[in-house]
Amino acid sequence: MNKASKTAISPTRAEDYPEWYQQVIRHADLAENSPVRGCMVIKPWGYALWENMQRVLDKKFKETGHQNAYFPLFIPMSYLEKEAEHVEGFAKECAVVTHHRLEADPETGGLRPAGPLEEPLIVRPTSETIIGAMYAKWVQSYRDLPILINQWANVVRWEMRTRLFLRTAEFLWQEGHTVHATKEEAIEETYKMLDVYADFAENYMAVPVIKGEKTAGERFPGADITVSIEAMMQDRKALQAGTSHFLGQNFSRAQEIKFQDQNSEISYAWTTSWGVSTRLIGALIMTHSDDDGMVIPPKIAPAHAVILPIYRDETQRAEVLAYCQELKQELSKQAYAGRAIEVELDDRDLRGGEKKWYHVKRGVPLRIEVGPKDMAKDAVFLARRDTGKQESMGRADLLANLLSILDDMQANLLTRAKAMREEFTQEINSEAEFRKYFTPKNADNPEFHGGFAMCYFSSEEEVQPLLDELKVTIRCIPIDDNDTPGICFLTGKPAEKKGVFAKAY
Amino acid sequence: MNKASKTAISPTRAEDYPEWYQQVIRHADLAENSPVRGCMVIKPWGYALWENMQRVLDKKFKETGHQNAYFPLFIPMSYLEKEAEHVEGFAKECAVVTHHRLEADPETGGLRPAGPLEEPLIVRPTSETIIGAMYAKWVQSYRDLPILINQWANVVRWEMRTRLFLRTAEFLWQEGHTVHATKEEAIEETYKMLDVYADFAENYMAVPVIKGEKTAGERFPGADITVSIEAMMQDRKALQAGTSHFLGQNFSRAQEIKFQDQNSEISYAWTTSWGVSTRLIGALIMTHSDDDGMVIPPKIAPAHAVILPIYRDETQRAEVLAYCQELKQELSKQAYAGRAIEVELDDRDLRGGEKKWYHVKRGVPLRIEVGPKDMAKDAVFLARRDTGKQESMGRADLLANLLSILDDMQANLLTRAKAMREEFTQEINSEAEFRKYFTPKNADNPEFHGGFAMCYFSSEEEVQPLLDELKVTIRCIPIDDNDTPGICFLTGKPAEKKGVFAKAY
Repeated sequence: MNKASKTAISPTRAEDYPEWYQQVIRHADLAENSPVRGCMVIKPWGYALWENMQRVLDKKFKETGHQNAYFPLFIPMSYLEKEAEHVEGFAKECAVVTHHRLEADPETGGLRPAGPLEEPLIVRPTSETIIGAMYAKWVQSYRDLPILINQWANVVRWEMRTRLFLRTAEFLWQEGHTVHATKEEAIEETYKMLDVYADFAENYMAVPVIKGEKTAGERFPGADITVSIEAMMQDRKALQAGTSHFLGQNFSRAQEIKFQDQNSEISYAWTTSWGVSTRLIGALIMTHSDDDGMVIPPKIAPAHAVILPIYRDETQRAEVLAYCQELKQELSKQAYAGRAIEVELDDRDLRGGEKKWYHVKRGVPLRIEVGPKDMAKDAVFLARRDTGKQESMGRADLLANLLSILDDMQANLLTRAKAMREEFTQEINSEAEFRKYFTPKNADNPEFHGGFAMCYFSSEEEVQPLLDELKVTIRCIPIDDNDTPGICFLTGKPAEKKGVFAKAY
Repeated sequence: MNKASKTAISPTRAEDYPEWYQQVIRHADLAENSPVRGCMVIKPWGYALWENMQRVLDKKFKETGHQNAYFPLFIPMSYLEKEAEHVEGFAKECAVVTHHRLEADPETGGLRPAGPLEEPLIVRPTSETIIGAMYAKWVQSYRDLPILINQWANVVRWEMRTRLFLRTAEFLWQEGHTVHATKEEAIEETYKMLDVYADFAENYMAVPVIKGEKTAGERFPGADITVSIEAMMQDRKALQAGTSHFLGQNFSRAQEIKFQDQNSEISYAWTTSWGVSTRLIGALIMTHSDDDGMVIPPKIAPAHAVILPIYRDETQRAEVLAYCQELKQELSKQAYAGRAIEVELDDRDLRGGEKKWYHVKRGVPLRIEVGPKDMAKDAVFLARRDTGKQESMGRADLLANLLSILDDMQANLLTRAKAMREEFTQEINSEAEFRKYFTPKNADNPEFHGGFAMCYFSSEEEVQPLLDELKVTIRCIPIDDNDTPGICFLTGKPAEKKGVFAKAY
């Protein structure tokens, strides 16, 4: 507890948002930095969150016809060179393997690399090139198409400034890679997977997102179209939470992914790729957590509830524990969102306050305290993590209402996040207004500025200098509700579409 | 089909076992070599098998109190050096990252590594050292113990001669790493996880295994005790299918994993590690498959059954397909070994024979053919992959007996494999007998020798020269039924225990 501020996390969001973020992670025991520069350790509570995300996404991928497979960690250097924009995009931040053993170093008495490789290998920053090389072998005829494959894997991008979950040198992700006979089908796949991501973000993570298309300058290196889901964090900055790319024939030409069509003609195939990563955990933290720590939507929470037995002596302990164990079993018989209710019973020898705050900071949705007085009434003391609401509730009522309480929490978190996004989203029509909007509201706290600006703009090139000056980016051109043309906020020229402008992670 | 031999796989096991193995993998579409030396691509059918293995093992790990986490891919070179035997064991076969970007090479016009690292990083061959570095931070008091963590990950060992699944430069595995306050508890953990592996091998993979302790020469680098499960392949060679290590205080001393005990004294902790890998898929193939391809035990088969509709024209097609779809739905309502029955309906436009052999070679446990004549009787034509038994069966009977048929197949595969192992296991008491036993039975086929020899031996050192000469190894000293002392087969000296001697993968 931060005694001055009466919050469990110090500093608070208003005091220092970036430091608050690190402290939430530390107190919830989600992850920490490792001795390997830029690489994080995902601790059990954080990894269980990732497993829940994986489980839901994996099911959605399989329901949309995809299969999982696994491709090599290493990419020969020459493969990266094949697609010009792609190598440009990744060459500056990749881990390069140059040797295949260690030998004694007579000078230092330690070890040194030995066995130089003929061709250096890159630790995959993304797998278009190595997967494409295999697809070129597998695809001969239109009968071999489509190929709909996903991979769960680790990737490495040598980022210089890293932050847990948001930007780490190694991260975990999934990458879908598909091959199609027609452009139309590949574009349909690109948008279909964007919808899968948006559905997952909103309906499981309770993170509202805007689906939209990236401008040319923000596209994936080698893509013809990149679409993304963009979410607003509590400091009003945007976070790109997932991307899906229509790669056209760029990679199939670079890698010779060709097939014979029904008329016996040889064509280059059309490919897509799409991915989400452990960055989603960063999005989750910055959408829902508060000055007391993590808040996790029930659908992906590693535990739905924790039971804290309260007693004074050994006699009370035996009775209370027996009651709690029975309650745990009863709760576990129910299932929510396709998964049995997971309940922790925390009987560690810790002081009550310490134990309570431990679970508050970890973000367990429901805290259930049971002492002799509660038992006497066949009731429990129930606290909701999202609203902080605390009440005494009969055990039978808890069992009867458990699923609807969880549903209410899940819905409440989404509603709250949507309301925040709406409050801090504004249509902006002039440069002056735009400049003012992105000026920090408080000199002491540069994190809090206006939020999302919805602006018509005539061209990326024309607005870029202003964006660079203000450190603002065009997050995307929203797909929905964006059919009416308007006037560019900067140039006054006619503009086809609105963009979402924001500072971003 | 191999027309000469009437088998689907050519060569047969008897003709050329190593090549048969490669062909089974190719025809079942499990995996293939990638352009990256020694790294394989695990294709969807092979990866689904791995996912099923993971699901079962992961549940067992969690039931025994373990949690999953994730640690960095990279290990600083200096970490490997800390435990002397450990670095000795892995230095000769590791991928070394020395640079963190690529730059244009003016000489070749291509790229070259740039941004040299201050300290080279090793791509993890196993994670004792990097995980131990974190544990040293996490463990302060006896209250922090035990730590029971597992990681699902990729690892890299730069093997020079690779074979799909059995020995690849990169492979997928799980590695458990635990820390305990007492030696006894750590040893108990070591054996407990061996039991988990043995139970999984026998009761899910239908692969009978011998649990035993490794001799000093065969231990994991840095371990005080290594125990393993050893299985017999159809060529009578042994395959080590899983290992569990009691690491004593070797790694905790090297890495300063210390804690304050209940008497406020500082002690080094006791650690264990244990792992199984995608090598298990190799064990599966070489235990059950036959000259027609893969045979997969139902409990881990990616699909339990495939339905093949048979028809002559479009009218028949519509009727047969409707019948098959309904049958598929009915079968899928049942669950076997904790998983809903998975049924494929293969309506591809292929000739009947081609389609049948496709599924035979992939090892789908049950093949269900349905044509108009079957439909007229409300029956199906059912073929079991394990025995090859084919029969007409009423649909109601199939639905009523499905689970017992699968159980029978699962049991049959284990019984068959056990019978084979018993047939080719012999107690051997003299050098002459030992030499004869390990001489190939057939000059044309060096793969087939005697099998497992159970021999008393007085010391590893004394038998080693003979073993080196015959290319035989001591697989393990069995734990069960090994309490009666005997006489060494080579030296005639008294010996405490029998060992399992075998040629091995």
